[in-house]
Amino acid sequence: MNQLITDRERDAVYKTIYSRRDIRQEFKAAPIPDDVLARILDAAHHAPSVGYMQPWDFIVIKDDEIKKAIKSEFEKANKEAAAKISGKRKEKYESLKLEGITESPINICVTCDRNRTGNFVIGKTHIPDMDIYSTVCAIHTIWLAARSENIGVGWVSIIDNDKIQDILKIPKDIIPIAYLCVGYVTQFSDKPDLEKAGWLSRTPIQSVIHENHWNKN
Amino acid sequence: MNQLITDRERDAVYKTIYSRRDIRQEFKAAPIPDDVLARILDAAHHAPSVGYMQPWDFIVIKDDEIKKAIKSEFEKANKEAAAKISGKRKEKYESLKLEGITESPINICVTCDRNRTGNFVIGKTHIPDMDIYSTVCAIHTIWLAARSENIGVGWVSIIDNDKIQDILKIPKDIIPIAYLCVGYVTQFSDKPDLEKAGWLSRTPIQSVIHENHWNKN
Repeated sequence: MNQLITDRERDAVYKTIYSRRDIRQEFKAAPIPDDVLARILDAAHHAPSVGYMQPWDFIVIKDDEIKKAIKSEFEKANKEAAAKISGKRKEKYESLKLEGITESPINICVTCDRNRTGNFVIGKTHIPDMDIYSTVCAIHTIWLAARSENIGVGWVSIIDNDKIQDILKIPKDIIPIAYLCVGYVTQFSDKPDLEKAGWLSRTPIQSVIHENHWNKN
Repeated sequence: MNQLITDRERDAVYKTIYSRRDIRQEFKAAPIPDDVLARILDAAHHAPSVGYMQPWDFIVIKDDEIKKAIKSEFEKANKEAAAKISGKRKEKYESLKLEGITESPINICVTCDRNRTGNFVIGKTHIPDMDIYSTVCAIHTIWLAARSENIGVGWVSIIDNDKIQDILKIPKDIIPIAYLCVGYVTQFSDKPDLEKAGWLSRTPIQSVIHENHWNKN
């Protein structure tokens, strides 16, 4: 492979990063061809990992009964979440669609095996959670690879991980990190849903950049 | 922006993902132009974040004295790490170059502000670490955006985060997630350093993919 990334290739990467969205309401039922899914998962398997640990597993869910069981757990958790706020804020929260579990043709649960490759992992001696961070790199690689295939991804985090563990028969020493909904979409919105809904706006970039050390109040 | 990613653009994204490396020994001293760094950080600021929290900050370090202080903390931690193993394994470990702190023109510390946007964050009610996962998505966006600019990144995790916090004057309620070395490189290797060194090999992709639920022993 030619090592040099051209300006045109770079622009394609930025286009993918900027047009990626967290998809909840725009999923189409159209199936994802096996070769396309294989490309996305193989890319994720080439994410960086601490000490080359590759601690991830990918559970690809197409079964409707399993999706319904997960959706039911989302609904319980979503009620618990809504109960934490009140008034107009609660009304707004309840008006938001926050998952696409049953509409998306594929769900993917990404897990982390904290014991993979043994006790001593290069780079994990002083920051033990590096294996989890590696797994998140694989998750974000799925997100971007999928976007480059014009496929949308939504990360469902309003759910109890213990319930995911039970439903998907995940061993106790393996931990679920993300539950993703994956599918083709009617559109990728210009802006994130929560910005469009007026929930929060994008922070000015200048406010999050510091020189040499922390220098804001 | 045209929403459709073409096949050629998709291929550019995969080329970037597959040719990304964790760089430790190939850094060149050449400075990174301000506009290039700005593009990389702006891309990172467009990473997904739970409840649109954008919990990250980016500390851009060019000061040699600060880099030397960080390098000294790496060296202490690296000795502690080596002491955990013995024999040929220890010899191999000690032969590996695991950081490029002073050779790379820019270091970037990425932090997570766990209280940003207040007590109630959509999607963080049941998985409290989602803000940390969002920060890791920003870190991996830096990695891929940098690669698309033909710039290398190395994540230094053999270090005590409390020391990073002190040296960079990071407030106690903000946590460092990654310390990155960033710069142009002499080359991007065909394979990860740890694979080339015979430390570990890539897991077969089939071994990490499951159908509908966990189905391996």
